[in-house]
Amino acid sequence: MEKSGIYKVTKKASQGHARLGSLVLPHGTVETPLFMPVAPQATVKTLSQADLLESGVQMIVSNIYYLHLRPGEDIIQRLGGLNKFMGWHRPILTDSGGYQVFSLSDMRKISSDGVTFRSPVDGTTVVLTPENVVEIQRKLEPDIAMCLDECTPYPCERAYAESSLRTTLDWANRSLIEFNKGTSISHAEGQILFGIIQGSMFPDLRRLAVDEMLKLNFPGYAIGGLSIGEPFSLRTEILNVTVSSLPQEKPRYLMGVGTVKEIWEFVEAGIDMFDCAMPTRNARNGQLFTSHGKLVIKNSRYRDDNRPLDPDCDCYTCKNFSRAYLSHLFRSNEILGLRLSSLHNIHFMIKLMSKIRRAILTDTWEKSKMEFLGKYSTGFS
Amino acid sequence: MEKSGIYKVTKKASQGHARLGSLVLPHGTVETPLFMPVAPQATVKTLSQADLLESGVQMIVSNIYYLHLRPGEDIIQRLGGLNKFMGWHRPILTDSGGYQVFSLSDMRKISSDGVTFRSPVDGTTVVLTPENVVEIQRKLEPDIAMCLDECTPYPCERAYAESSLRTTLDWANRSLIEFNKGTSISHAEGQILFGIIQGSMFPDLRRLAVDEMLKLNFPGYAIGGLSIGEPFSLRTEILNVTVSSLPQEKPRYLMGVGTVKEIWEFVEAGIDMFDCAMPTRNARNGQLFTSHGKLVIKNSRYRDDNRPLDPDCDCYTCKNFSRAYLSHLFRSNEILGLRLSSLHNIHFMIKLMSKIRRAILTDTWEKSKMEFLGKYSTGFS
Repeated sequence: MEKSGIYKVTKKASQGHARLGSLVLPHGTVETPLFMPVAPQATVKTLSQADLLESGVQMIVSNIYYLHLRPGEDIIQRLGGLNKFMGWHRPILTDSGGYQVFSLSDMRKISSDGVTFRSPVDGTTVVLTPENVVEIQRKLEPDIAMCLDECTPYPCERAYAESSLRTTLDWANRSLIEFNKGTSISHAEGQILFGIIQGSMFPDLRRLAVDEMLKLNFPGYAIGGLSIGEPFSLRTEILNVTVSSLPQEKPRYLMGVGTVKEIWEFVEAGIDMFDCAMPTRNARNGQLFTSHGKLVIKNSRYRDDNRPLDPDCDCYTCKNFSRAYLSHLFRSNEILGLRLSSLHNIHFMIKLMSKIRRAILTDTWEKSKMEFLGKYSTGFS
Repeated sequence: MEKSGIYKVTKKASQGHARLGSLVLPHGTVETPLFMPVAPQATVKTLSQADLLESGVQMIVSNIYYLHLRPGEDIIQRLGGLNKFMGWHRPILTDSGGYQVFSLSDMRKISSDGVTFRSPVDGTTVVLTPENVVEIQRKLEPDIAMCLDECTPYPCERAYAESSLRTTLDWANRSLIEFNKGTSISHAEGQILFGIIQGSMFPDLRRLAVDEMLKLNFPGYAIGGLSIGEPFSLRTEILNVTVSSLPQEKPRYLMGVGTVKEIWEFVEAGIDMFDCAMPTRNARNGQLFTSHGKLVIKNSRYRDDNRPLDPDCDCYTCKNFSRAYLSHLFRSNEILGLRLSSLHNIHFMIKLMSKIRRAILTDTWEKSKMEFLGKYSTGFS
């Protein structure tokens, strides 16, 4: 068996920077580009682990912000780690929770040492440091752990972005030192640690971040601090600057992105891994992805529409139920509607990534992308 | 293929009145005694139709009170009937909604003609008559339709119980006349109509109800108006009076009952069919049925309990998840917890009925009942 963390680019598109690859992890080798559904509280909302397997999900993203607060990493460790705890036997990545601390917490205070905030679960004071975030993830045992970082807001003043980046870089260094202390444990399990590139919307800070992070030689790099309200053109610009500085031989993970269009664009820019809450959150709001674009199931036109959500889709929902039945479930506030919709949207994302990988493999990138996005913009008749 | 509605008693227990039987219906033959999960709004709350199949559910109970209000029987008819609408291909029984009108509706008014109430969905005035209730069920196409009845409250004065019973008997007669008008349609589909025995807690009224209903010669009889707050001993007395007057060759359906103990008792009294909202409602409240009795998953002792809910259970939940994980899902308000719990409770009820049928088949009723209820009362160590 190959060593955990080994990443191989197996094919590159002849146009653009899209690449096909595989990443060896303790719970299996994943094929990139890939999309990871989010399971912040150790469950992809509304779906069972069997649902995820059936949809072809390769890896999921959980979050230590939530798991540290409830049930706590000690309980999960005693129960055999996060995979066993949640009954999911494929790879897991855990985010360090930096983004959640800054976006969700009351009373948060940041210092060079770490972050302090009030637990929304029980009101107690919680401290996260680069070191304890590594320690928590050692206990949770995800395949991929993430460094603690600060996600700057948008917009952000230059001075704050600079000082925040210095903190994030310092934290990355301290994370790695702590991680390597646990080498004997971690290597036995094969856990790997990714660094996170910040630098707000300043190209030179992003380049600086990459330069400094490369010195630490992480097995993979995440790009954070994007998709936080900035315009698409700026997101693309910053992303391109960042990716073009990253080494070819390491996987690149764009955090919290994105839409169907963004995924095509950013795979083309050279991104290998994505996670996003949108497919499941949209599903619960009745916004469903189809080959012809978004379908809003609460629209009254679907009340007696006997067609499946997407005639091109072979998910459990589309094979067994009509738009009319889904419309009824939403109107009746029935939980099954949330699940059938989530199942469909996740299946859609997984199928999208499979088409993207095929487009790279067969070197038909431009044609495949145009066809997919062309159809996606038409709507159903 | 045998004619829909044919009921055969295949074996009787040598002690008590428990019987094993089979009932031929358009969507398949069901084995009795059986338990039917409720799907009031065309979904067993939180579960998919695949979940129901996997649990071995033979038949479900939906409700025209809900379906008439939303989405309406006309939409369901246009979409091919209730089975097609909800993607469930085994038998369905629809309750007439009498109980719901009396327990859930504002502004309800009852006359000899029918009931009038305000729709909780859109505030409009809704009229249900014996005739339109049959008509609605003709459009929904369940295997078993029910007559409109009045479910008297508990306690109930003698005079009201008498006059209410007269109404229910008159409605049964009118229902049958309406049902037989549609013979050509209904027989093609094989739909059958059950009568409902009322009579409150008065033994002579129950006997009168049976006598009058038998004149109408329904293919099956339901017993309504029990489990509405009366003590267990009274319920048992009234049930025994009613069942002992019913003919052996027709199936008997006890509506809205019941607990594990009640099911053993009332199968022994001669009941063949049960439905109850409790297994799924309890599941959503975190009350789980196990071979050792009820387990309240929100209890803090389960936070780090790595055992399955019930080591004797082979449902998806018990085979894949620990009490600790379920505890976490409930504490985190995650929908998956509701579903895994519902799946488990339904599986428990279906297995219970299978054990009950086996006890009759092997003529070990008393021993099987004592063993089951003995263990059920012990709790886990």
